[in-house]
Amino acid sequence: MTALHRRRVVALIAASPLSGLARAQSSPAAEPLPSWQDGPARARILAFVKAVTEPGGREFVPVPERIAVFDNDGTLWAEQPVYVQGLFIADRIRAMSATRPEWKTKEPYASLLRGDLKALAAGGEHAIAQLAMATHAGMSSDAFSKIVEDWLLTARHPKTGRPYTEMVYVPMLELLAYLRENGFKTFIVSGGGIEFMRPWTERIYGIPPEQVIGSTIRTKYELRDGQPVLVRLPEIDFVDDKAGKPVGILRHIGRRPIAAFGNSDGDLQMLQWTAAGPGARLAAIVRHTDAVREWEYDRASKVGRLDKALGEAAARGWTVIDMKRDWRRVFAFDAR
Amino acid sequence: MTALHRRRVVALIAASPLSGLARAQSSPAAEPLPSWQDGPARARILAFVKAVTEPGGREFVPVPERIAVFDNDGTLWAEQPVYVQGLFIADRIRAMSATRPEWKTKEPYASLLRGDLKALAAGGEHAIAQLAMATHAGMSSDAFSKIVEDWLLTARHPKTGRPYTEMVYVPMLELLAYLRENGFKTFIVSGGGIEFMRPWTERIYGIPPEQVIGSTIRTKYELRDGQPVLVRLPEIDFVDDKAGKPVGILRHIGRRPIAAFGNSDGDLQMLQWTAAGPGARLAAIVRHTDAVREWEYDRASKVGRLDKALGEAAARGWTVIDMKRDWRRVFAFDAR
Repeated sequence: MTALHRRRVVALIAASPLSGLARAQSSPAAEPLPSWQDGPARARILAFVKAVTEPGGREFVPVPERIAVFDNDGTLWAEQPVYVQGLFIADRIRAMSATRPEWKTKEPYASLLRGDLKALAAGGEHAIAQLAMATHAGMSSDAFSKIVEDWLLTARHPKTGRPYTEMVYVPMLELLAYLRENGFKTFIVSGGGIEFMRPWTERIYGIPPEQVIGSTIRTKYELRDGQPVLVRLPEIDFVDDKAGKPVGILRHIGRRPIAAFGNSDGDLQMLQWTAAGPGARLAAIVRHTDAVREWEYDRASKVGRLDKALGEAAARGWTVIDMKRDWRRVFAFDAR
Repeated sequence: MTALHRRRVVALIAASPLSGLARAQSSPAAEPLPSWQDGPARARILAFVKAVTEPGGREFVPVPERIAVFDNDGTLWAEQPVYVQGLFIADRIRAMSATRPEWKTKEPYASLLRGDLKALAAGGEHAIAQLAMATHAGMSSDAFSKIVEDWLLTARHPKTGRPYTEMVYVPMLELLAYLRENGFKTFIVSGGGIEFMRPWTERIYGIPPEQVIGSTIRTKYELRDGQPVLVRLPEIDFVDDKAGKPVGILRHIGRRPIAAFGNSDGDLQMLQWTAAGPGARLAAIVRHTDAVREWEYDRASKVGRLDKALGEAAARGWTVIDMKRDWRRVFAFDAR
């Protein structure tokens, strides 16, 4: 990031309602989780934290082992109507098409540029992968971070018109801060691209890049004019989704979390892996039940489908966070 | 780890001279780096830390960006006469051969079991990889951690007769603690196996598993009798050496370190990558110059060969830590 660019980013954050929120949350004297209704989900979170932090308690967990993992899309920020990274890909293809005239007649670019999402969907996963690689590979890791930062400065959510960095759930920001105040280390474990998240997770969630786990493409170290660069290659390296999530957790963290939060079937194995460890465990699902303030979806949804994991939550007694019932507020810009 | 096993490990640590040492180091009032001679290497380390931590200073670096990376073998602990992980492999093959009678006549196992290292070397890298997979794969990640823990309880260094966990360099332990006292986050970036290091890095170096980067084999998540396990597969996933080190750093940390410490050509790219960033940088090489207290080796050595990186250190003005000249003490068990 250049100094000028950094100043622009800092100015954007300072103007955001979230920056004040983050400060307010860090006061340990205040009642915890103020945006949560006084219901069963909040009660179970508080009871779990009390159990693992009470010195001499039967379920006490030493600070270094207090690891909490969070899915990102649909768990920390909104994923409807389309994953944010999908919108990034579409915007980038449009921006890049100015210097790629051949894309106007070449699939899958042509369908996307015409706005023909049906034709695009017909291309299946292969078409999506092609678009992802065209927008995510071919540059250095530093250059890609800057592209993401720049995009976030101007991109707006198609429904709310808000920057994506305001589409985060206030109750989850409070939860992240509350866990950290209680000695937890908080990690993101997302199916999304690791380098797509890292440029902004620290200032939005208070989660530094080294605590972000996600899907990766291959990178290659090389010297260009004597300067070392890490070049992003158009080749999938690791998919941090479903059964990949516990694998990503092992690789990056090296020990089993004691708390996990997800919202879809992509999080099932992460929740299983976390819940199966010894001692007190918190496995929780954020359920999208609020059609007014957010979206209402589960089994039938293409984005964030929640089916098997909901069944397992019921069978195993995991915590279900019902957005409509459990959250007083969803977004910072909601009327209070 | 079972409760009994944990108690045994704790008992071993409590009896170790290192545990007292770790406490002594953490006193910020004491003069920093007491086991270092008052020479150029120590002076450069102190000057660097002063520059990046001085509030309002021209080279000030915010705490979250104070990332320091350390190679392990030959940088934090001894790597002669053979990498510790190599000795682990040999010991495990011998132990496992009790239930594998076919190994007595099957290469490369037979050569190892006969102690015929020349024949083994003739098998090349392929033979070594076979032995590594036989000892590192086929069990769950939890079971492998326990195997490593158990081995460290009884294994002894072939020259000194000490546990390997005492073969760590006291000046480097002091350096790790000193950097952390100054807001640095310390990481290991090693060519060694990530799961071979994680069981002990926290208690020996104060580096938690999530700050250990190393080579990996593939793991697979599966349910066995309804219980989730991560199974280690006999397949290389990532080699965290040479040009792999900056790639591993990007993947795990997501930002460029400002300080890096290595000792061999395997660390060259990590040092280049660190040194090439903007602002104050510390790139340092531990040079093995002390045939009496440790070992004396560089260009001609098979283990820890230091050739190109030493040339680049001279050309670019990197810091060379000369063990014989710069360290008052090497190991905790040395006479003072």
